[in-house]
Amino acid sequence: MTETNFETYSPERLSDDIERIRELAESLLPVYGQLTFDEQGNSDHPLYQELRSLLHPLHPADMATVLESLPLDERILVWKLAAPEDDGEVLLEVSDSVRETLMETMGKEELLAAMEDLSADEVADLAADMPHHVVTEVLQNRDEEEREQIQTALSYEENQVGSIMDFELVSIRADVSCEVVLRYLRRFEQLPDHTDKVFVVDEDDVLQGVLPIRKLLVSDPDALVSEIMAKDVVIFHPQDNTEESAQAFEKYDLITAPVVDDTRHLIGRLTIDAMVDVIREEGEADMLNMAGLQEEEDLFAPVLDSVKNRWVWLAINLCTALVASRVIGLFEGSIEKIVALAALMPIVAGIGGNSGNQTITMIVRALATGQLDMTGAKYLFKKEIGVALANGVIWGSIMGVISYVLYHNLGIGVVMMVAMTLNLILAAVVGVLIPVTLEKMGRDPALGSSVLITAVTDSGGFFIFLGLASIFLLH
Amino acid sequence: MTETNFETYSPERLSDDIERIRELAESLLPVYGQLTFDEQGNSDHPLYQELRSLLHPLHPADMATVLESLPLDERILVWKLAAPEDDGEVLLEVSDSVRETLMETMGKEELLAAMEDLSADEVADLAADMPHHVVTEVLQNRDEEEREQIQTALSYEENQVGSIMDFELVSIRADVSCEVVLRYLRRFEQLPDHTDKVFVVDEDDVLQGVLPIRKLLVSDPDALVSEIMAKDVVIFHPQDNTEESAQAFEKYDLITAPVVDDTRHLIGRLTIDAMVDVIREEGEADMLNMAGLQEEEDLFAPVLDSVKNRWVWLAINLCTALVASRVIGLFEGSIEKIVALAALMPIVAGIGGNSGNQTITMIVRALATGQLDMTGAKYLFKKEIGVALANGVIWGSIMGVISYVLYHNLGIGVVMMVAMTLNLILAAVVGVLIPVTLEKMGRDPALGSSVLITAVTDSGGFFIFLGLASIFLLH
Repeated sequence: MTETNFETYSPERLSDDIERIRELAESLLPVYGQLTFDEQGNSDHPLYQELRSLLHPLHPADMATVLESLPLDERILVWKLAAPEDDGEVLLEVSDSVRETLMETMGKEELLAAMEDLSADEVADLAADMPHHVVTEVLQNRDEEEREQIQTALSYEENQVGSIMDFELVSIRADVSCEVVLRYLRRFEQLPDHTDKVFVVDEDDVLQGVLPIRKLLVSDPDALVSEIMAKDVVIFHPQDNTEESAQAFEKYDLITAPVVDDTRHLIGRLTIDAMVDVIREEGEADMLNMAGLQEEEDLFAPVLDSVKNRWVWLAINLCTALVASRVIGLFEGSIEKIVALAALMPIVAGIGGNSGNQTITMIVRALATGQLDMTGAKYLFKKEIGVALANGVIWGSIMGVISYVLYHNLGIGVVMMVAMTLNLILAAVVGVLIPVTLEKMGRDPALGSSVLITAVTDSGGFFIFLGLASIFLLH
Repeated sequence: MTETNFETYSPERLSDDIERIRELAESLLPVYGQLTFDEQGNSDHPLYQELRSLLHPLHPADMATVLESLPLDERILVWKLAAPEDDGEVLLEVSDSVRETLMETMGKEELLAAMEDLSADEVADLAADMPHHVVTEVLQNRDEEEREQIQTALSYEENQVGSIMDFELVSIRADVSCEVVLRYLRRFEQLPDHTDKVFVVDEDDVLQGVLPIRKLLVSDPDALVSEIMAKDVVIFHPQDNTEESAQAFEKYDLITAPVVDDTRHLIGRLTIDAMVDVIREEGEADMLNMAGLQEEEDLFAPVLDSVKNRWVWLAINLCTALVASRVIGLFEGSIEKIVALAALMPIVAGIGGNSGNQTITMIVRALATGQLDMTGAKYLFKKEIGVALANGVIWGSIMGVISYVLYHNLGIGVVMMVAMTLNLILAAVVGVLIPVTLEKMGRDPALGSSVLITAVTDSGGFFIFLGLASIFLLH
């Protein structure tokens, strides 16, 4: 019997590998120019040999993690040494920003070689990062059908199903028996990845139903496909939104699903692995957006690239901070008289920001999973204002007492308590309004929500606290 | 030929349904006590009839979304009307917090009925929310094997593979032919969900390999399983971490995978749908944690529950705000002399907080995907400090000029610029240190990172700005 290679997934082992690879790459960098290579492009330098032997057995997905974990120079060195037959697979696995750094180092011949083993939809995924003349040549190397598939995939936006569907379809007719289907399948060298169903079409390629393999395997060989095929079929259109499609995969536990055009002709299929990427990216995008990063950033990007990726939200933040500063400026007279106000005002602003961010995060999540619509938002107002009132009474009282103890001034304590409660209510109202309004406008509710709410609770908090203090503490 | 029900996934239609269901439930609530029911528990009230007809065709996952979208009273009404045969499925689909509100309304008999059609691993998922005596009874209703499976699943932590594996195993011997395997499979009434491979075991249930169905279908019927079974097998142990296992599913595009004990006995399997839930929850947890929410919250939770879920981080935030306030207090003398300082200091603190949050978010993400280890963090320091310097020069200069224009004081402009740059550098250093240290301590790097960095950049920003101003502007 053949020896089986069981492998327990161990991120620790990969991370040990990465550390050793980084050390080796660092040591090789200064001497790389002096290495001599044989015809196969190999060197007998011991560091080179060890590095190759570490890189060689890596799965493309692990190689992608290795490359993402390395600083730029080391990354490029390792990329040069990587097994070229996997190049295309690795390029598909790395993040967009890292892919750019890798493809920049590749010549036309290398790019063409990397594309060779990829399917039409995979080529389309990489085409955006390739020089135009290379894409043209890749297209020329493909047959008519694949050329059309690549162009179809390229014609859709990144967030449309058409851009992530693949074309590896196994389709059958409805009027044949299971026996015939099994014989037909046996003629394939291999079935497409993730094949959990075959698509049932008529002579014009119009979808009639799907036959799950699970059902095929337990059915009487003489049964007709039309008798056993699934009648409830979730279908997708190439112009559908990818995030919503991923939700459907999650809800209905799909592995693959057909993509059809408006006249229900079968044109492609969606697979769970592409959907998992969508789910992962969606969660990340919400997080990045809330923090004010434009897009996923290469950890080891040059300083200038990072500055570019982050400047927009920093600039917006500065503008809102400037507004808050001018609000304080309105009350400089009051602060001059009671300087304690300057020390206490950030507390009022801070609790509003923190509480508003909690509200917004909860709502962004609920909007993403379809739990919250406009009518539901109405109910939330009441609840969030209730939470704000409760928190205002609890924390406002505590801070009121502390302020009184610090400054021996009852008025300051009372103003503190009232201002905190009012700012918490403001945070609740705006915390519901901002994401719900963004959603209604068709915008991403996560985008900059956090910066916006902080802008309101800062300026609002300063205004409420200093305003109340000016009215009640300065006669 | 049978009529096929094609269904395009449409979140809009579901959300229209939800709105109508909410209206109906609202109108029914006040009159529900007066309804008369026949023996089947149905009423002929038109609103009741319409509500039933809307609820009846819903998939359990859509029913879960409906329930999550409804305020408490309406939710309980709809739950009473929901088709009882799907109760168990729906309970599995709703979020933890909503599940509690539903199960509280169910009597023992209803709970037992809901459990009836669930598999052992599903029962284990729900057991935590059931009263102890109901769990005991559920266990009594199962056979010896299932009882053991449920107890096995219950013995693992929520973040361990053992708690989410299932027991629906199809296993075969290595010394039989494909023909025999196909015949064996045909004897099943149906194969377990997601079956993309069968497990090859010896007479002691020790795993020998796996036979992908895709391979079985294209192989010669006379070929032996041992000849065609997969030799590279990713295996999991019940004590493995679920998030790391989900990463493995993502990397290696798995649909199902075997779970074995230390002596490689096959005890269960992992499926992609459970892994997708882990990936979704992981992303959500990071977001919630960064915003300072303890756990996913029922949108329509009573005010008191929400206050409880959020109070810890509000309290921590208040403590750090108090510290920042005391830092300002140290410089009250300076503020009294130059009251402009009070207006400008939040700008310095704010840009530090914003920039630090960008750094932290990027690092939390990189740690989650295994791209960053301790050695890599060293490189990041240099880069992030570079970014901070660049931003300090750009934004510091702009704000310096604005401050100068506003207050006609060159000193204030210069102090502003220097303080902003220094606080940005502080934010960069601490933004790398906090998540990396939390990770090193084995804690979740997302947990409260955002509150911690803001604490440092607030107190630090006030101290740097007011300190510099006191030294250079007040002689």
